[in-house]
Parts: sequence; structure tokens; C-alpha cells
Amino acid sequence: MDTSAASPASKRASDILDQVKSVFASNGFEGASMQDLAQAAQMSVGNFYRYFSSKNAIVTALVKRDLEEIETFFEAVQSSENPGVTFMSLLRHRIETLPFEKAALWSEVQAASYRCPEITTLMCAMDETVRRNVVMALVRIHGDDSAAAREIFETRAQLLMLLVHGFAQRKYCTGADAGSEDYVALGELVLSTLHDTIFTPPALPAE
Amino acid sequence: MDTSAASPASKRASDILDQVKSVFASNGFEGASMQDLAQAAQMSVGNFYRYFSSKNAIVTALVKRDLEEIETFFEAVQSSENPGVTFMSLLRHRIETLPFEKAALWSEVQAASYRCPEITTLMCAMDETVRRNVVMALVRIHGDDSAAAREIFETRAQLLMLLVHGFAQRKYCTGADAGSEDYVALGELVLSTLHDTIFTPPALPAE
Repeated sequence: MDTSAASPASKRASDILDQVKSVFASNGFEGASMQDLAQAAQMSVGNFYRYFSSKNAIVTALVKRDLEEIETFFEAVQSSENPGVTFMSLLRHRIETLPFEKAALWSEVQAASYRCPEITTLMCAMDETVRRNVVMALVRIHGDDSAAAREIFETRAQLLMLLVHGFAQRKYCTGADAGSEDYVALGELVLSTLHDTIFTPPALPAE
Repeated sequence: MDTSAASPASKRASDILDQVKSVFASNGFEGASMQDLAQAAQMSVGNFYRYFSSKNAIVTALVKRDLEEIETFFEAVQSSENPGVTFMSLLRHRIETLPFEKAALWSEVQAASYRCPEITTLMCAMDETVRRNVVMALVRIHGDDSAAAREIFETRAQLLMLLVHGFAQRKYCTGADAGSEDYVALGELVLSTLHDTIFTPPALPAE
């Protein structure tokens, strides 16, 4: 149970995010105006500005909300008696249920990050947080906290993130009909590659 | 040697593509106007329209040019005496030299593909061509043209494309300073995953 007391204002802000995120996916980050966004939230532009002062502020809030989800994900891994099994089962859930809309929005934010230094900074900070959490999970799974193992885990964490993001983005063609056999087969191959990436013992240089 | 006789008009069109592609990366697909694009090509808007009638026409031409490069890539694999070694060495070249700008442009086109059915169709056709070529390469490498092997190769082809694209897109944070040790280490791990994907014999169901 979530016992944190979300203020009515932050609950409203979160509802607005749900209402506007599809505007970015359908109009593009550059193509979405504050008018379009206010309209999607069924608010006047003036009132909308009280919640979000710019498109960048909205993207920032979306990314921060994603980060909270990701933190919950890794808390479950860290507190599990069998972190490797928990990690794999959460990854499987993510691979099997990632919505198309989220992949579209993520593509949009990534494209925007090439143009906008604030978004780049934000995306890189998010990336860094995820990566640190993956490394912590791998340290716990292998029971190896040496500097040499950590270096290997840092690179593996990146491969893992590449696989999960890359899989989501491949949905746009192969998953045109979601749940196509093709896409399910790719999901299984990605999961088996994730499995190897997580469980192969780190090959340390001979002493 | 390329002995095809490129017409002066198509040579000019190709030059224009080189001049305008960075506008998409810096302004975004929706944010780039025909005025911006004509200016980048140092042409009047009227003259520019004689070469490209719309932004979609430019994206189409960019994707088609990419496809020609890719065809050259796979012709080299197919005509090689040792297709597996040639495939790996071309992939290594691609992983090591992919320019940042190309990754940015590809992100932009991919984001646009979520919004624009014509671009989706084009991207999926390109995807399909690459995939068919990878499958043909795997058939030749393993000397196995059975339906069961082809099905396995179809899925592996997708993993391969996911890895190459995903790697390019990870450049935006980790490769902020291109050639960072971090990014080089990830490149090596991606190449070793590509190697396994290409060379592991297809596990066929027992007869």
C-alpha cells in the first residue's frame, strides 16, 4: 500500500500528464503546442501554465514519474530472497506488456534529447540511475563487489538497457499487430539474451 | 568501381540531402519547415520544391539512400568466400564508426514514423529488406536453407538489427565524449553478442 500523502495538486498534475502524453506521441515534441496540450487536459491555457510552465517541464515530469516506477522495480529486486529470479520475472513482465504508446513517447523524448540540452541532461541522469540500479542488482546476484566485477557489470547494465529499449522500439513494424508470433519469438530471444547477460559469471582477468 | 551513370539531377538531389539532413536532427521533423530546409541547401523555396515536394519526400529519399548502402553491405557478404567473417568485420566497422548525426537522424525518423503512416510504411519496408538480407546471410553462413532454420534466422535477424540500432542510440549519453572507454567496452560486448547470434548453430527441434 502506498501510504505517501500525495497532495491534491500533485495528483492533478499526474492526471494531466496522463491526458497530454499522447499529444506528444501524435503531434511530435516540436509539433505539440501548449494550446494542444491544454486542450487535451480540458483546461484553459492560463490554468494549464499553473501546472506546467513549458513543454520541457512536462517531459521532465514524465521522466521523473518513470523513474519512480523504475525505483519500485529495483527495490523489489533488492529486497527479494532470490534477486536473479525476481529480476528476470520483472523483465519478462516488462517485455510482454510494454505498451505501444510508451514506446512512441520514449522515441519522441529521445529524438528531442538530441536537440535540447535540458532533455539530454535529464535523460542521461535517468540513464545513470537505471544503470546504477542494474549494477547493484548484478553485484547482489553474483555476490561479487570487487572493482573488476563492477566494471564488467557496468557494461552489462548498458547492454541490458539497450535490449529492453531496443525491443520496445522494434514494436513499430513487427508488432503492428501486437502479439504477432514474430514479435513474441523476438521477445523470447531477447529474454534469453538478458538471462545470459545477468547470469554469466563475470570473467575476471587471471590473478 | 561504381559505373552507374548518376544523372546530374540525382547527384544534385543527393547533395541537397547531405545539406538538409542536419536540419531534421537539430529542429526535429515537425519543427523543420520547408523554408529552413531550402535555406540549408542555399536555394530559394521555389527551386527547392523542384527537387523535393514535401518533408516526407526528403525522408523517403534519405531512407532510400540508406538502403543502397545496406545493399552494398550485403552484396559484399554474399560474394565473400567466408561470409561469416565478412559479416562480422562489416558489423565491427559499423559499430566503430557510426556517426552521432546519423543516430540523431534515425531517432527523428523513427519518432516521425509513429505519427505518419507513409513513413511507417517506408520504415517497415526498409526493415523488411534488411531482415531478408540478414536471413540470406545466415542461410549461407550455416549452409542450412530448411524452413525450420529460416524461422530461427528470422528472429535472430531482428535481434541483430535491434542490437545495431540500439547501440547507435545509446551514444547520446555514454558517448557524449565519443570514443569514451565506456562506450568502447559496450561496443565490444555488443559485437560479442552479435557474434553469438550469427554463429550459434540453429537449434532445430529433434526429429
